[in-house]
Amino acid sequence: MTHGQDGRIDAVVVGAGLAGLTAARELVRDSHSVTVLEARDRVGGRTLDHRLADGEQVDLGGQWIGPTQDRVNDLVEEFDLDTVPQFDEGLDQVSIDGTVNEHDDALRALPAKAYAELMDAFGQIETLRTQIPLHAPYDAPDAEEWDATTVDSWKRATLETTTARGAFDALFRALFTTDPSEISLLYFLTYVHAAGGIEVITGVEGGAQERRIEGGAQQVSRLLATELGEAVQLEAPVRAITQDDSGVTVESDAGAYTGAYVIVAIPPALAGRIAYDPPLPARRDALTQRMPMGATIKCIATYEDPFWRTDGYSGFVLTNDDIVGFIFDDMDAESTTGALVGFIVSNEARTWSERDASDRRERVLDDFARYFGGQAANPVEYTEQVWSNEAWSAGCYAGNMTPGTMTGYGDVLREPQGRIHWAGTETATQWCGYMDGAIRSGERAAAEVSSRLT
Amino acid sequence: MTHGQDGRIDAVVVGAGLAGLTAARELVRDSHSVTVLEARDRVGGRTLDHRLADGEQVDLGGQWIGPTQDRVNDLVEEFDLDTVPQFDEGLDQVSIDGTVNEHDDALRALPAKAYAELMDAFGQIETLRTQIPLHAPYDAPDAEEWDATTVDSWKRATLETTTARGAFDALFRALFTTDPSEISLLYFLTYVHAAGGIEVITGVEGGAQERRIEGGAQQVSRLLATELGEAVQLEAPVRAITQDDSGVTVESDAGAYTGAYVIVAIPPALAGRIAYDPPLPARRDALTQRMPMGATIKCIATYEDPFWRTDGYSGFVLTNDDIVGFIFDDMDAESTTGALVGFIVSNEARTWSERDASDRRERVLDDFARYFGGQAANPVEYTEQVWSNEAWSAGCYAGNMTPGTMTGYGDVLREPQGRIHWAGTETATQWCGYMDGAIRSGERAAAEVSSRLT
Repeated sequence: MTHGQDGRIDAVVVGAGLAGLTAARELVRDSHSVTVLEARDRVGGRTLDHRLADGEQVDLGGQWIGPTQDRVNDLVEEFDLDTVPQFDEGLDQVSIDGTVNEHDDALRALPAKAYAELMDAFGQIETLRTQIPLHAPYDAPDAEEWDATTVDSWKRATLETTTARGAFDALFRALFTTDPSEISLLYFLTYVHAAGGIEVITGVEGGAQERRIEGGAQQVSRLLATELGEAVQLEAPVRAITQDDSGVTVESDAGAYTGAYVIVAIPPALAGRIAYDPPLPARRDALTQRMPMGATIKCIATYEDPFWRTDGYSGFVLTNDDIVGFIFDDMDAESTTGALVGFIVSNEARTWSERDASDRRERVLDDFARYFGGQAANPVEYTEQVWSNEAWSAGCYAGNMTPGTMTGYGDVLREPQGRIHWAGTETATQWCGYMDGAIRSGERAAAEVSSRLT
Repeated sequence: MTHGQDGRIDAVVVGAGLAGLTAARELVRDSHSVTVLEARDRVGGRTLDHRLADGEQVDLGGQWIGPTQDRVNDLVEEFDLDTVPQFDEGLDQVSIDGTVNEHDDALRALPAKAYAELMDAFGQIETLRTQIPLHAPYDAPDAEEWDATTVDSWKRATLETTTARGAFDALFRALFTTDPSEISLLYFLTYVHAAGGIEVITGVEGGAQERRIEGGAQQVSRLLATELGEAVQLEAPVRAITQDDSGVTVESDAGAYTGAYVIVAIPPALAGRIAYDPPLPARRDALTQRMPMGATIKCIATYEDPFWRTDGYSGFVLTNDDIVGFIFDDMDAESTTGALVGFIVSNEARTWSERDASDRRERVLDDFARYFGGQAANPVEYTEQVWSNEAWSAGCYAGNMTPGTMTGYGDVLREPQGRIHWAGTETATQWCGYMDGAIRSGERAAAEVSSRLT
């Protein structure tokens, strides 16, 4: 830990993901002393690098960055990291209710009527989302009704064909790793709006899936942690936070830490599992009961070469037919090695998280083979990350608000409770749910605490 | 604690509410040894007796019992407790959107069109709920669609007039202490079905509000605890549960307890705040993130006499106009003392839980006075219980499933996880959410554990 001039820690930070590490760094830059307590034996939270046998680095966690994600792009530049564009040449495949279609623009692979319906729905989303004030979505004109409606109900009212509905489900699950039944229309629109719209959030070039960080996204956290040095304490799950007029005491498995303030930089669902003394106010506690985590299993298979490219395929698949919900080519255009990354999402992820790893591997590779031929079933290497089984994430990508939550409790999402401040991508007003949002949330929380310390 | 013949505890029970105490008692009756660990300094969980200045005992927690609640009625009989009927003579008042109407059958106070709409909606509820298998609601024919629809969406599709909608909201909040936006239609129908239908669940005579236990409902828990003697350990919040092939270790603030099995008899949201080793399977953990607690503040005012009776009023009010959502006469027909019990529910409860007690008292008594005249603003005594501020309930009456939860995770609600069994009213298939359901759940969990012990 780093100490202030009077020997007391200014701020304890809970969680060494991008949000917590950014918050700590900003505080140190403002000459404050910090200790970061991390439950795991590593930093990076929901980012995780993995080195393949051939030395290539892949992401088993958060992966893509894109334009308008200014804060993560700034960090990438500052740390002198390279980025590589997501490979996106050739035919995409879309398989809804058993029929595989191909097109170089994925959704255009859908039958004309389904495509038209979906585009019309996207148009509606664009019209609606711009009515939402990002700092206070509960103030949107129709907030109450939107928040009382599940995305699934909106979908059934908006899309007629089962194909359009199936494609929407597949796309929704890819974005949220949960089902359209679980989230309110208001939260969905807010999330899309925070990313800059439906085109941006679903896009590759110019969109949220444009580039990845060479060497892996977890590097950013590792570089931040290196700067912070001994201020980062690993294997220190936080169990309790006590506060009074004089400061906070944060109890972890690695001991108790006292400070003037604490920044809790973990998802609300996990923040709710810490014991607070005095207890959190009712509405804050209620919020932590209403932002369940999504679920995903990320599966990467590597091959001698990207043979699907030769066959004219981009490697991209979107489907509601398989346990894998979507697939991307995981290597850059110049790579001679081939890699596919598939995501099992939402309920399929939770169901398959309880199966044997070997069953899962077999089934995922079967899915890959369905789109890219038998060769895809025989990778050189196969690796996976079951985020739903990670106790210190309790799911992935993020925590999402259930119906009624944004209007009922959204105003306490970022509201400090005494000496406790909140960070984490779930609290971001731009790129909520993304690495960029995590960084922004850390900066915001650090600014809040800094202003109280000086 | 009581020990088995080999000096080892057969079962540790977490929570000394009706579910946990019943489970413990059943196990002891089967000659098993148990320890019950309770976080609070009292037993009874969401029941709580309070002695008024005049010696009269009132309920600040769970209060009413009725026919078909066989298990709680059996216990009342076994413990030789008396019950008194809920006073229900005279005019009820219903105030929706600013207009107060009176009738001796509350809902008939509504304008004719609104009443007709509501009765039609009740008819639909009755038709739909009987299609639900109570042990597996996710197997209902339309389970997926019902679970993807909020009760609020169903209400807007079913009821046209704002008065009918307002009355439905008021009734829903009284039953669930949460808003119709938060719960799926499937969960709502299941809950109503588990109580025997909409008439029973909303009714006084012949219904869920028929009688109260003389001396207070918490007595039942106290009598169960007396039987169990030293097996009940108070002020022992459970923080962690570890299990392996040989047994379980339950870590509490009063020390660690080892046993063969553990029964966790607390709401799922609170069960999710215990640290499990090994971690719970993904779907079980996900369930604990998806059953948020309702919120209520129960307020009791006593008077020299029940003056509203003289004025021809029953004391019953249902409203969406005030912070108090509903009011009942809290004394029996023979009582010379007067008492009104008002419930602040759902978001109003959370908002008002953060206000000063004196503000709350003033506002609640203003609400009482609106219906019963200025005399109601000057009680002899006023007392309240803010359940949303109780860390060891995290809300009240119960945890309810958000949309998508029953179909996605409902099958793990009662499923044992290794040596961990689950009880609590939320797990009941009859009278889920009620004291009767809590007792039933305790019996079921005890039977599960007993069958593994013998």
